[in-house]
Amino acid sequence: MNDTQNAAQSKAAVVLLSGGMDSTVLLHHVASTLGYSAIHALSFNYGQRHDRELECAAYQAAAADIESHTVLDISFFGDVVRAGTSLVDGGDAVPDLADVSPTDRDQPPTYVPNRNMMLLSIAAAYAEAQGIAEVFYGAQAQDEYGYWDCTDDFLGRVNAVLELNRKTPVRVLAPFMDRKKASLVTLGRELGVEFAHTWSCYRGGERPCGVCPTCVERRNAFAAAGGPDPLLS
Amino acid sequence: MNDTQNAAQSKAAVVLLSGGMDSTVLLHHVASTLGYSAIHALSFNYGQRHDRELECAAYQAAAADIESHTVLDISFFGDVVRAGTSLVDGGDAVPDLADVSPTDRDQPPTYVPNRNMMLLSIAAAYAEAQGIAEVFYGAQAQDEYGYWDCTDDFLGRVNAVLELNRKTPVRVLAPFMDRKKASLVTLGRELGVEFAHTWSCYRGGERPCGVCPTCVERRNAFAAAGGPDPLLS
Repeated sequence: MNDTQNAAQSKAAVVLLSGGMDSTVLLHHVASTLGYSAIHALSFNYGQRHDRELECAAYQAAAADIESHTVLDISFFGDVVRAGTSLVDGGDAVPDLADVSPTDRDQPPTYVPNRNMMLLSIAAAYAEAQGIAEVFYGAQAQDEYGYWDCTDDFLGRVNAVLELNRKTPVRVLAPFMDRKKASLVTLGRELGVEFAHTWSCYRGGERPCGVCPTCVERRNAFAAAGGPDPLLS
Repeated sequence: MNDTQNAAQSKAAVVLLSGGMDSTVLLHHVASTLGYSAIHALSFNYGQRHDRELECAAYQAAAADIESHTVLDISFFGDVVRAGTSLVDGGDAVPDLADVSPTDRDQPPTYVPNRNMMLLSIAAAYAEAQGIAEVFYGAQAQDEYGYWDCTDDFLGRVNAVLELNRKTPVRVLAPFMDRKKASLVTLGRELGVEFAHTWSCYRGGERPCGVCPTCVERRNAFAAAGGPDPLLS
């Protein structure tokens, strides 16, 4: 155990857990590798098209045997952003990745207006109220397209806001920011993550659609890492 | 009408409206002076101790004859921050200002963990989804004590996050940031603001308590501006 891990032993952390691949690998990475004394996972119900993600989040929180898992109902947010996104029920239809023009991949139809800044603000409030100084966030290097609110620059600027807090500054950590999704498949396997209990598809079917932007990303990641995606078997 | 006002004619704006003095004066200032074509007020129900603020917000939105007034239910936030604030029902009791020690005035008991960053994030999402580029925020120079999330520095850093948005960056404007509360009383009078329909007291009584931190601030502001506070008469 190194010094960082020793220091973490007496510390608690908050982990944002969507139930997707990336945040699930993050949860298990933080829980089993970084030596925190207590981990609190935070998930959000924001009017997603389906409950599969949140079911997976609950499964993974139990599997990681953490201190607490809280699902916050922010369904008001669906109304706020309905005009500007296809990810919430009542928004535009989720497009196939093939139908997203290259110029739109800079900020594709699946982008949710300012969602990540809001989620990090809530997570920071939750952490601060409990005297927890660190929030883990599963942003990773984008393969197919980019969201401005998943970048290093975004994270640095969010932390620049939070560090102004005079008493209990909270820091957001995104240890996967520079990692490709394929490397998270590999890391997850090393950690024993049950990928069959993670959900990525933007659509609400019984099985992943296979053609929406995140399904394509996930398929490519498993292909690059080698071996099947257990969710599809 | 100057150039800025001409440009604003074809533009819409979002105004954060709590129903307190500062945001009410801001609403009327934006509505009657800056020449926007449409103004959308946004209020929040976050588990306040009382409804008086929101009733005042509705009254003022109607008085200003604006495009829309939306109250978002973010009562989940009460649960998130209950441990860390006295402003929500179930939190610690609201202290008299006289009982707040000078060292605590840097971040007093009435501070709500990371509330302002969250509210601005939601307002920015709301604006972005509708293609609105400007959000007005009623932060003003603090008399009695300071909140880190009401400062120029805070605002600049929040905008530094938002300007990374690649398609529809939103800017938060706080035209009262350097003004004392007393000067807002004067401005409000010039604009015909009905201060009897604004609410500041942190406690939930029929009438303002007169001794909580915000009551003291309000009383001092009216005293400095000269003339009575119509809410008290």
